Amino acid sequence: MYPDSLKKLIESFKMLPGVGEKSAERMAFFVINMDEENTNFFADSIKVAKEKIKKCSICNGITDKDICDICSSDLRNKKILCVIEDPKSIFLFEKIGSFNGVYHVIDGLISPLDGIDPDDIGLEKLVNRIHNEKFEEVIIAVKPSVEGETTALYIRKILDGMNVKVTRIASGIPIGTDIEYIDSMTLERALNDRKEIE
Amino acid sequence: MYPDSLKKLIESFKMLPGVGEKSAERMAFFVINMDEENTNFFADSIKVAKEKIKKCSICNGITDKDICDICSSDLRNKKILCVIEDPKSIFLFEKIGSFNGVYHVIDGLISPLDGIDPDDIGLEKLVNRIHNEKFEEVIIAVKPSVEGETTALYIRKILDGMNVKVTRIASGIPIGTDIEYIDSMTLERALNDRKEIE
Repeated sequence: MYPDSLKKLIESFKMLPGVGEKSAERMAFFVINMDEENTNFFADSIKVAKEKIKKCSICNGITDKDICDICSSDLRNKKILCVIEDPKSIFLFEKIGSFNGVYHVIDGLISPLDGIDPDDIGLEKLVNRIHNEKFEEVIIAVKPSVEGETTALYIRKILDGMNVKVTRIASGIPIGTDIEYIDSMTLERALNDRKEIE
Repeated sequence: MYPDSLKKLIESFKMLPGVGEKSAERMAFFVINMDEENTNFFADSIKVAKEKIKKCSICNGITDKDICDICSSDLRNKKILCVIEDPKSIFLFEKIGSFNGVYHVIDGLISPLDGIDPDDIGLEKLVNRIHNEKFEEVIIAVKPSVEGETTALYIRKILDGMNVKVTRIASGIPIGTDIEYIDSMTLERALNDRKEIE
């Protein structure tokens, strides 16, 4: 029904997360009405990003250099390592602005049910790095799910014997959320991890 | 904070309708993790669609030919013309599958408040076409708003004296919608345009 080139454009947008048929059609119609300058900018930015963005050889974060800006910065505290599961998390932590350590991205979470073993998520590279760079603290900042907890405990275990403090970011009730909307696992955790008001 | 090429990709996605900062970031991260085959397909589909898609010289619908498939088809009833305000509407009507006439896209709706006069929306081309092609019926299928009604009445008026039936698609309560959610203008219209049950 649609002209062929429009059909392909709609298909392209449908590849994106959270974009269904209707949104893809809306985006495609919008694009064909854009200035050619903008469509060129759009198309080129896809190709250039795909070409240039790669993994930082130290932390696995994304960068357009060999070593990312954080790993190569002299202003970061190279004694504190934050372990995350997704390169995107780096930018979320950087937005807070108060963390000054460095990062290490592991390649997902341990999930025996999905056949993902410790070997599959690059823990060897992590352990070697911790061994070589002599971190004082390793903060595990993967998500609080069964897989996340398994992964955190596993990392804790393989770091046993190394002279490093291993911590886990807190779970609990998000700031500003009504308690009535919180699931019982989170509520239980929040209760167990309660802190004394000083 | 983001590498330059990623920043540009996020900017690109933010140009799209309904895409804010967060969605654009999500889409950009998704794209840099796609296969190169898919990113090439995506980028090329933008450029090719922009290059090839143009207005049908007869109906102003979108096409990758000089004359669109509908205007050039021998299977369509060339005596019934459906006037719409947006090329996209053609595909919505085609999805119904029961309309077999042809279309004409006008370039928006008359809106004195926004300074859009009858001259601005290509009504001359429409009138010439109706005059030359001797349609039996002109169905006005623009949206039921103040601007839509103004435009419909204006078209009705300038076709006065031509031997052509001018109709307007019905307004009323959408199928399946609870009456309690309907605004009073729509409800009034539905009441006024009531039909005898036969």
